[in-house]
Amino acid sequence: MGDPGGIGPELIARCLADADLRQRARFIVHGSSASLTLAQERCGVHAQWFRASSDATPRTPWSEDAVVLDDERLTDVLSLEAAPSKRAGHASKQWVESAIADAMRVQDDPRRTDAMVTGPISKEAWGMAGYAWPGHTELLAARTHTKRACMVFDSPRLRVALATVHVPLMDLRNLLTIGRVYDPIDLGHQACLELGVTHPRIAVCGLNPHAGESGRLGDEETRVIAPAIAMARDTGINVHGPFPADTVFRDAAQGRWDMVVALYHDQGLIPLKLLSGGGAVNWTVGLPIVRTSPDHGTAFDIAGKGIADPRSMCSAIDLAIRLANARRTSTTATC
Amino acid sequence: MGDPGGIGPELIARCLADADLRQRARFIVHGSSASLTLAQERCGVHAQWFRASSDATPRTPWSEDAVVLDDERLTDVLSLEAAPSKRAGHASKQWVESAIADAMRVQDDPRRTDAMVTGPISKEAWGMAGYAWPGHTELLAARTHTKRACMVFDSPRLRVALATVHVPLMDLRNLLTIGRVYDPIDLGHQACLELGVTHPRIAVCGLNPHAGESGRLGDEETRVIAPAIAMARDTGINVHGPFPADTVFRDAAQGRWDMVVALYHDQGLIPLKLLSGGGAVNWTVGLPIVRTSPDHGTAFDIAGKGIADPRSMCSAIDLAIRLANARRTSTTATC
Repeated sequence: MGDPGGIGPELIARCLADADLRQRARFIVHGSSASLTLAQERCGVHAQWFRASSDATPRTPWSEDAVVLDDERLTDVLSLEAAPSKRAGHASKQWVESAIADAMRVQDDPRRTDAMVTGPISKEAWGMAGYAWPGHTELLAARTHTKRACMVFDSPRLRVALATVHVPLMDLRNLLTIGRVYDPIDLGHQACLELGVTHPRIAVCGLNPHAGESGRLGDEETRVIAPAIAMARDTGINVHGPFPADTVFRDAAQGRWDMVVALYHDQGLIPLKLLSGGGAVNWTVGLPIVRTSPDHGTAFDIAGKGIADPRSMCSAIDLAIRLANARRTSTTATC
Repeated sequence: MGDPGGIGPELIARCLADADLRQRARFIVHGSSASLTLAQERCGVHAQWFRASSDATPRTPWSEDAVVLDDERLTDVLSLEAAPSKRAGHASKQWVESAIADAMRVQDDPRRTDAMVTGPISKEAWGMAGYAWPGHTELLAARTHTKRACMVFDSPRLRVALATVHVPLMDLRNLLTIGRVYDPIDLGHQACLELGVTHPRIAVCGLNPHAGESGRLGDEETRVIAPAIAMARDTGINVHGPFPADTVFRDAAQGRWDMVVALYHDQGLIPLKLLSGGGAVNWTVGLPIVRTSPDHGTAFDIAGKGIADPRSMCSAIDLAIRLANARRTSTTATC
């Protein structure tokens, strides 16, 4: 559910009321049933779900198409402010933990889930509750013992893989290593394959203006980025660059590239958010589990008003369903 | 004309063949008449012009609506390759110098021009010819004794002012000072006024992901950018931020802001080039003369084929004409 004081409950309410989405999967919501009821009222939508205790351990998988694993600790949701709070931080952290645990269960465990979609959490709220995790991704990597994970964004016109995410921009001087650039190329390539792109064409951005102009405007292109590209090409990946970042996204949007590797948060997200018009999905590639999320935050400024745009959340659920189905098929095929 | 081995001659040939543009101003081309003739053939367009010696000193302004100040040194243009060369570097540098000199002449000098539009030059060619200038802008600032100049990009959906331009990204750590962020706010504000925006609304980007998240992801927002914004607000400028760079351009494109101040090259040019579709104009604000240019380079890879897109060059000429007319009107009004 994400932070119950943010727009997460509204997004879920709207998605559960979407008949098309509803029939494509069975939904387990780790969150608060009262928050969801309230959000439904505020959005003017109606959906039905089965309410279960958060620690319920059924003998067989739930037969209902939507189950809310209710957090009985989160009483009095009416008093929750649309702002970071310790109470909401505690709750949203617990929900993520239990969702990860369920996604990691063995195949025949009745609580096992095939994919996980995370609503937006507030890092400030997590901080108030005493959790220092920078975000979902780092927590997921730790809980699933993943060494190499990569944030990939999928949207109809553009796909982006990020080499670094939530770090101060000037820290890139020390962070940007050959391995750090190689990983998103490799994982971005795998992501394309999983999305059904059979011969992925991958472009890598330069760090400096005009991709460094052959070393005249910075040396990261020759020192780090080109070697990472060469390493990836040696493994058979069809990757090119480094390209000037101010033109490569236009080329990608016109169909020249299946994936663009951006070196830092804004380099990838400025073009993505301009082109996706609110429908981009964040996908953590490299985890043993399928995990997607919308590309926006808690939006406390509009939370509780029933006006939040659910497109990115719907797209995140759609992608999670497609990936889970693809993995099931490939597992069956392998067996 | 820019580099005669690049697409500059083709762009000028196409613009001079544009009847609408032609009747709105009188054109003086600092370049090579032979290059222009060749470019015309390659583009399949026809325009007429008067050929004069580059050092001609008429007693009265030329009456022709297009004059090419021919560079007699640049013979044998057929042997010019579509690549950086010492010969083309020498020539294009000389043309920029003479164009600046003409724009700086006193009002009643017959060679005086009201505005200057620069075709793309090759820095590599300038380097071969022994000129170390990073680009037009720095040369223009030096020749016109300008302390504060700012690169502004104008396009129908987005205007951007840059705090830094052709520097390695990691150098921003030392370059980004309060004054360096204040200047593009102030000059961006003036640019809006000159473009006829009576109450400019200006947004400033953050440097770090999520504009630093209140200092959790970098301190430049609190240490440098917010103080520069406060300083500008004190002088009456309607400026806000720092905003996360991955959403502020979308807001600007939707009409929320008249100008966005970006802190580095790619931050401003990624969204600009995505949204402008080839029609953006580069305008050097803060100079005593009007100077615009297209938003692209020499494009050696397609030069000489007659396929270069002249839209940005046409827009650059259009903006130069509008600005020159506006300055004439305001000068007349002041007198």
